[in-house]
Amino acid sequence: MDPGALRILVTGGTFDKDYHEIEGRLFFRETHVPEMLRLGRCKVFVVLEQLMLVDSLDMTDASRQLVLQACRNASEGRIVITHGTDTMELTARTVGAAQLAKTIVFTGAMVPYTFGSSDGLFNLGSALAFAQALPHGTYVAMNGRCLHWDNVRKNKSTGVFEEPG
Amino acid sequence: MDPGALRILVTGGTFDKDYHEIEGRLFFRETHVPEMLRLGRCKVFVVLEQLMLVDSLDMTDASRQLVLQACRNASEGRIVITHGTDTMELTARTVGAAQLAKTIVFTGAMVPYTFGSSDGLFNLGSALAFAQALPHGTYVAMNGRCLHWDNVRKNKSTGVFEEPG
Amino acid sequence: MDPGALRILVTGGTFDKDYHEIEGRLFFRETHVPEMLRLGRCKVFVVLEQLMLVDSLDMTDASRQLVLQACRNASEGRIVITHGTDTMELTARTVGAAQLAKTIVFTGAMVPYTFGSSDGLFNLGSALAFAQALPHGTYVAMNGRCLHWDNVRKNKSTGVFEEPG
Amino acid sequence: MDPGALRILVTGGTFDKDYHEIEGRLFFRETHVPEMLRLGRCKVFVVLEQLMLVDSLDMTDASRQLVLQACRNASEGRIVITHGTDTMELTARTVGAAQLAKTIVFTGAMVPYTFGSSDGLFNLGSALAFAQALPHGTYVAMNGRCLHWDNVRKNKSTGVFEEPG
Repeated sequence: MDPGALRILVTGGTFDKDYHEIEGRLFFRETHVPEMLRLGRCKVFVVLEQLMLVDSLDMTDASRQLVLQACRNASEGRIVITHGTDTMELTARTVGAAQLAKTIVFTGAMVPYTFGSSDGLFNLGSALAFAQALPHGTYVAMNGRCLHWDNVRKNKSTGVFEEPG
Repeated sequence: MDPGALRILVTGGTFDKDYHEIEGRLFFRETHVPEMLRLGRCKVFVVLEQLMLVDSLDMTDASRQLVLQACRNASEGRIVITHGTDTMELTARTVGAAQLAKTIVFTGAMVPYTFGSSDGLFNLGSALAFAQALPHGTYVAMNGRCLHWDNVRKNKSTGVFEEPG
Repeated sequence: MDPGALRILVTGGTFDKDYHEIEGRLFFRETHVPEMLRLGRCKVFVVLEQLMLVDSLDMTDASRQLVLQACRNASEGRIVITHGTDTMELTARTVGAAQLAKTIVFTGAMVPYTFGSSDGLFNLGSALAFAQALPHGTYVAMNGRCLHWDNVRKNKSTGVFEEPG
Repeated sequence: MDPGALRILVTGGTFDKDYHEIEGRLFFRETHVPEMLRLGRCKVFVVLEQLMLVDSLDMTDASRQLVLQACRNASEGRIVITHGTDTMELTARTVGAAQLAKTIVFTGAMVPYTFGSSDGLFNLGSALAFAQALPHGTYVAMNGRCLHWDNVRKNKSTGVFEEPG
């Protein structure tokens, strides 16, 4: 299987949050995606593009259009988007509705990568795999599963991504 | 995408090695796969079956037949096999040549899961994803990629899984 | 050297903060001190007493009196107090001014223990050692050093504990 | 308390072992002590001297004389020696019998620092504290305790350092 090159669009989210030890709060310093790819000994040819580094609760319609535009502009047919989980389904809907002839997979983490107990590395591994193996379409890869953009919702009380109906 | 249930066959390998603090050497205590699935907040319905817990250099032809038999017997159509990397290609060949009507994905790790710097969680995430998304066949999922059983080799000097020809 | 039994008074602080993965914020679930003692294979006979589990910015005069009272009441002559760093110097002053005939050592962490990059285990190790080896008095053990209660200040811009004069 | 400068003599031991991911075995690459001091935000003025990087089972009488010589030559009055646990008591005896007018503290780890579950950071923190606070003499700091060089033995079955008599 040679799915060709793959682009990762970084938008931030819990994935990339660090602990600010002077101020005692979470913040963004830089993306951890390159470090995670190194840890995974990833040999997929990946182009990394950092679009923004924000909490997904701070994403605006303009941010989402920027994500969509980056998907359109990408020369690669396979795209992984790292994104905060709180509004991932909204951005997935913006991108999915555009019906691009590409395989686009959103992923994120419930716990920052810099914490020992993060699900980030697992999710990034599965998102990269789904992006290589699935047909064109826009998906959300969380909890080891891959759900279609028009049938996915984050359950706010459990943190699990589900198919509402 | 509802790929149905999935079985994980555990055989051991670097994945599952622990550090024996009294004897100062690596050994097997128990599989870390359940802990890794918890860490990944994995919600795929998984049946876990531990076949053995060995270094893949200690695998015999009989061990490989046991793996093949477990693949045959599994009622699930999608199987992930955790395996030491040193002879993963040999067991993949034994299983692949049997041409079962199932999607079977081998994976492993270069560094034990209990070390901070393990690639195990990344590999398990990608293997579970490939197992759900790919058509029937036997594959090796390492380094973020998925290679076909009859065209995969571990490069002994770099540790990377490649397509020889 | 047999310094006899030792009491650890837990008050919370960064030391014990966890990440709330549903709400995406830091919070207290339970103290990590027992887990840290296990990790350090600590064989000092320790009595653990949890007084409170709070951010030290939320500590009141009443909280500090409670800490002092617990020091007075302790039957052990050697006490370690885990405490948030923001107001550690204030509580140390309350306790130190009481001039108890005991060795009392405050410690804490700049980064929560549950993060990979925490200084907590290092600080706990040094605090337990100082508490065993130093004469009666009240001290702050941070950054590998031990400073006297009436001459210690947290530098708010660097996070380092210093002797002001 | 200003105990003045401190020297750390590195000899290797479990402390500094890494996992060789190509050969699947433990080995020495470089010492982790500087990284550990950074993690502990250590502000003690430390001179670091790497004497050797060996498993303590491979230490010879000549190695022990080298350690003793380095203790003699050190201009600092306080010394921490990182050492494998298997023969730590032997080297401590060589150094202790020399009755130098210095405070010398041996420490080590049961589990390599690069493993998630290492006791190394805890031990290093406690050794640095004991070295600053104790009177002249040679000690072994393990398990949160500090034992005198002429009354310490590693219990081979539990891995705990004890006072035999």
